[in-house]
Amino acid sequence: MRFSINRDRFVQDVQNVTKAVSSRTTIPILTGIKIVADHEGITLTGSDSDISIETFIPLEEEGTEIVKIEEQGSIVLQARFFAEIVKKLPGENIELIVQDQFATTIRSGSSVFNLNGLDPEEYPRLPQLEEDLLFRLPQDMLKNVIRQTVFAVSTQETRPVLTGVNLETDEGVLICTATDSHRLAMRKTTIEKNDEGLTFSNVVIPGKSLTELSKIIEDNNELIDVVVTENQVLFKMKNLLFFSRLLEGKYPVTKSMIPTQSKTTLRLKTKPFLQTLERALLLSREGKNNVINLKTLESGLVEITSISPEVGKVTENIETHMQGEEMRISFNGKNIIDALKVIDSEEIDIVFTGAMSPFVIRPIDHDHYLHLFSPVRTY
Amino acid sequence: MRFSINRDRFVQDVQNVTKAVSSRTTIPILTGIKIVADHEGITLTGSDSDISIETFIPLEEEGTEIVKIEEQGSIVLQARFFAEIVKKLPGENIELIVQDQFATTIRSGSSVFNLNGLDPEEYPRLPQLEEDLLFRLPQDMLKNVIRQTVFAVSTQETRPVLTGVNLETDEGVLICTATDSHRLAMRKTTIEKNDEGLTFSNVVIPGKSLTELSKIIEDNNELIDVVVTENQVLFKMKNLLFFSRLLEGKYPVTKSMIPTQSKTTLRLKTKPFLQTLERALLLSREGKNNVINLKTLESGLVEITSISPEVGKVTENIETHMQGEEMRISFNGKNIIDALKVIDSEEIDIVFTGAMSPFVIRPIDHDHYLHLFSPVRTY
Repeated sequence: MRFSINRDRFVQDVQNVTKAVSSRTTIPILTGIKIVADHEGITLTGSDSDISIETFIPLEEEGTEIVKIEEQGSIVLQARFFAEIVKKLPGENIELIVQDQFATTIRSGSSVFNLNGLDPEEYPRLPQLEEDLLFRLPQDMLKNVIRQTVFAVSTQETRPVLTGVNLETDEGVLICTATDSHRLAMRKTTIEKNDEGLTFSNVVIPGKSLTELSKIIEDNNELIDVVVTENQVLFKMKNLLFFSRLLEGKYPVTKSMIPTQSKTTLRLKTKPFLQTLERALLLSREGKNNVINLKTLESGLVEITSISPEVGKVTENIETHMQGEEMRISFNGKNIIDALKVIDSEEIDIVFTGAMSPFVIRPIDHDHYLHLFSPVRTY
Repeated sequence: MRFSINRDRFVQDVQNVTKAVSSRTTIPILTGIKIVADHEGITLTGSDSDISIETFIPLEEEGTEIVKIEEQGSIVLQARFFAEIVKKLPGENIELIVQDQFATTIRSGSSVFNLNGLDPEEYPRLPQLEEDLLFRLPQDMLKNVIRQTVFAVSTQETRPVLTGVNLETDEGVLICTATDSHRLAMRKTTIEKNDEGLTFSNVVIPGKSLTELSKIIEDNNELIDVVVTENQVLFKMKNLLFFSRLLEGKYPVTKSMIPTQSKTTLRLKTKPFLQTLERALLLSREGKNNVINLKTLESGLVEITSISPEVGKVTENIETHMQGEEMRISFNGKNIIDALKVIDSEEIDIVFTGAMSPFVIRPIDHDHYLHLFSPVRTY
């Protein structure tokens, strides 16, 4: 194999595929990234067997030559070193030459690296997916959907299926749900489909995969293709494929958990409420339980308090528009803060159904998302 | 005690004194910061018994009222909480009230914190220093002196005196030296003195103290007063005092270590040489010994190489202007990189006296600083 390539473009793609590579893998070849040069361009692959990323660099783009292939071939190089090396190379171009025994030479400017490569034949093949179950949505929308759900997945391995985000369709709309059983984040979005009758449920993508995907997809409205199979999902972008395995097991039915009634509804400004909770959390964090108390007062005020026996107490009264009964409840303040941070609307409603029942936070201007929380018993 | 104060100004000073507070102290009162309100303004103190910082906030500055004292007094509050709380308070002003039993109320905007304070009488008094041994230098100069020396102090506690930077005078010039016995950084600077005959030596300031001081002093040329006593040093700025204990023990005589002869001198451009070494370090770091090899070639080139048996080899040829004999030497690349990063001159000379002897790196345009390194034996 022998090719030369524009350094900046190569660095970007090497960094993208390296996101899939784990240093803690038990399969030695997966510590490397696979580089293939054929007559169309360069293909890079990185994988930790849960996530696989494949990128393609064409010979030219918009009339500018990016790659010049002098001899086709392939090699696997240690991802960690290779990514750092290409980033630090001095020249505008990089030449990569593979000789006998996978001995690889990288030249750029005055710099010459001789690296020990690995046998590309040992590198596992990526899954070939049937492209039956396919839908599309814009990249920036997908990025938002991930941001507004993935924080709520469980970090405990006791119920593995809860460490993922569940995807399902409902009347043609995509519904994404994450819950750790104390809080739930739900996000709806419209999608484009080839087959208008497309329906699916219980497609659970690991939270970690979505977090990595979110770092790669860009903030533009180019469409991303999503292919779903029995145990894999594939996100297809221009010149980049992102594969993730799906989590096994039955995702809980969450629709019925969401209360449809209300005993008390408080309307609050999102950002000031968030800041009030952050101040209250300074003390409740100390006790490591994050408990914050909310109490409605007369005259349209809500009192937020939290107590740390050693350090002290914080009290804050904030204005609200209230409907329904007087209310007193305690909750995990950190969970509410996490949710308020991803709500883009200026005002929210908190809908309570009782001091011991789950409550809902939702924006006042649309129903694209909602957040559900269990209260905390403090007696 | 009862006073109100401008929040932004208070936040800044609370953060400054908190830099001296360690959470790992064995003296409980030192986890707090001391706040004193008297008729002149507010004094804040933080200390970990090695470093102490005292700041003063006057009643008004440039005609603007900053503090309004309603009742004089003092209190000690938990530094970690207090610093976070004042940073997050919603109002433009903060009101602080101490009642019985050190119960402290902090009000700002809609927020009310009730904190358990500690007895200010228990807080240790700061040392009272005789202001005999005093010199002055601009803040930005001091910041540079610290930056260009402190990285070279020892991190090993086997010879405690080497964990500090040594200050001494030589013919009216201040000389600052740091060494971990493998490398040495030396920085000279002129100082202003009250007593023209001022001389001192073996004033060893802990590296950690200087690193903290460096975060506080500003990038301007206002003069800073330095008071040196038997076992303390005090840096006096406008409204801020920074005390540090001095290290005990005899600092090694380093002047005689610096070679005055040269067998080979290489002139190199600082930044390209630094980048070459950073690339070479990518591989030598792997073996955890950081060894980089340098060899002069014919025709005005220097070859830099490093090898990691598992990963591979890197070779780079760079241009130089050479005087003297051909040369081959190995060194700890990380140490050289550390030094090159703090050299502000565009070109340097590396002065060798033999493959097994210490060598010097110095800027070509002045003699304010030099760096000395031991070579590494590779056979």
